[in-house]
Amino acid sequence: MSVGNPFKSMAPNQLRRAARQARLNETTSGLAPGFVQCNLVIIPQDYAGDFADFCRRNPRPCPLLAVSPTPGDFSLPELGSDIDVRTDVPRYRRWENGALMNEPTDLLDHWRSDHVAFALGCSFSFEEALLADGLEIRNISEGVNVPMFRTNQPCTSAGPFAGNLVVSMRPMKPKDAIRAIQICTRFPAVHGAPIHFGDPSQIGITNLQQPDFGDRVTIKDDEVPVFWACGVTPQVALENAKIPLAFTHAPGYMLISDKPNTGLAIL
Amino acid sequence: MSVGNPFKSMAPNQLRRAARQARLNETTSGLAPGFVQCNLVIIPQDYAGDFADFCRRNPRPCPLLAVSPTPGDFSLPELGSDIDVRTDVPRYRRWENGALMNEPTDLLDHWRSDHVAFALGCSFSFEEALLADGLEIRNISEGVNVPMFRTNQPCTSAGPFAGNLVVSMRPMKPKDAIRAIQICTRFPAVHGAPIHFGDPSQIGITNLQQPDFGDRVTIKDDEVPVFWACGVTPQVALENAKIPLAFTHAPGYMLISDKPNTGLAIL
Repeated sequence: MSVGNPFKSMAPNQLRRAARQARLNETTSGLAPGFVQCNLVIIPQDYAGDFADFCRRNPRPCPLLAVSPTPGDFSLPELGSDIDVRTDVPRYRRWENGALMNEPTDLLDHWRSDHVAFALGCSFSFEEALLADGLEIRNISEGVNVPMFRTNQPCTSAGPFAGNLVVSMRPMKPKDAIRAIQICTRFPAVHGAPIHFGDPSQIGITNLQQPDFGDRVTIKDDEVPVFWACGVTPQVALENAKIPLAFTHAPGYMLISDKPNTGLAIL
Repeated sequence: MSVGNPFKSMAPNQLRRAARQARLNETTSGLAPGFVQCNLVIIPQDYAGDFADFCRRNPRPCPLLAVSPTPGDFSLPELGSDIDVRTDVPRYRRWENGALMNEPTDLLDHWRSDHVAFALGCSFSFEEALLADGLEIRNISEGVNVPMFRTNQPCTSAGPFAGNLVVSMRPMKPKDAIRAIQICTRFPAVHGAPIHFGDPSQIGITNLQQPDFGDRVTIKDDEVPVFWACGVTPQVALENAKIPLAFTHAPGYMLISDKPNTGLAIL
């Protein structure tokens, strides 16, 4: 037990503490199995109403799980009793006027009394449900980030927040894709059922071997690409909105909650 | 109201009475909307146990809804208070040693005290649920029988009953196919979710424009073929079994029950 990754056996609150103490500096993929991990967006109160509207109008890419109790409050009691959104994500991104500035490991020097945090569902939860059913997730078996693509499908805008849907892609045999549609339908809080399968050009994707985010994966002859609404969509909307200041998690470095994945199943 | 088809406005028990009195001589497609229509198989008691096993082992093509209370009893009280399986189907098929002999309009001269009737779910029920959701069903909009194909996918055999799965095919846009998978998952008693979509050769189908049963339909460029387990499968198993005597409904001439389609939804 002394070899290997010590984080693999830690509970969510232990992992958050490790991130808080700057001991956890890796992606959270595969950590705290069984628990919900979240996309995080932190913006000034002036934009919070519009961003909440954007999430509500685009629930597939932006399933909103929790919001700060009041502006400036850095806890998220809906997701865990001791969460501090300023420190508990291993790596953040700071955005100014829609441009990525840097990737701080905490926000202690950046936090303001008008900041509001939004936690959104993440594909890790439904991937776990698919794996539990015996399906293969290609990005996991190939040990890479899931390939993600910009589409030509517009989101419903809200105030300055607008943009096209971003999707993640997992290749599957049709039989497995049908099963994946059934399983993911049970989890609307983590992107729900796929939005498309098959011909990528129908949603404006030209080359499956050149993802806009993440890594390429192998697609076998008897497989079809299956596309899910993706949590990078709000990040693109944030870039488009060009608001003066925003923070997000860095891709793959998620907020680990105390909420069990199974609790997200609607049936 | 004097023009048009008088059967269109009849209740299930009125339609059964019309069939009993040899006034209803047409397919039951589109009649008694909202009510379950059934595939019917009538075989001697000696084979009833094996056929029940075949249905139980292959629930997707053979969803068993009701069985005769005792051999020789021609009622089916689970599906309607006044059903007479000898007369209430507009057209039957008589099989001897696996060969189709003729298509009688009633079984009054054929019924024996050892006959057992099996009523199986039919695609009409899920097509209604798909239409209600706004999806197009190509065979309905083109006014033809659904195209059906023999596959290379073996059923689990039981006694003399064996054979490959037969599927029905409906072309859809991927987005609509995903919705159809969700809706049909709610209806396991009428074939449930599709078993395949896309490349027909993966399940042993060589030419989508040459169905083995039913009619060809248009497949548009932006559509994929979607395949459901089909109620013709037990008819093929019956042919293969070559039992001395059997009766079924004639394709499209179904037994109309008093059971509402919505009652079949598991959620």
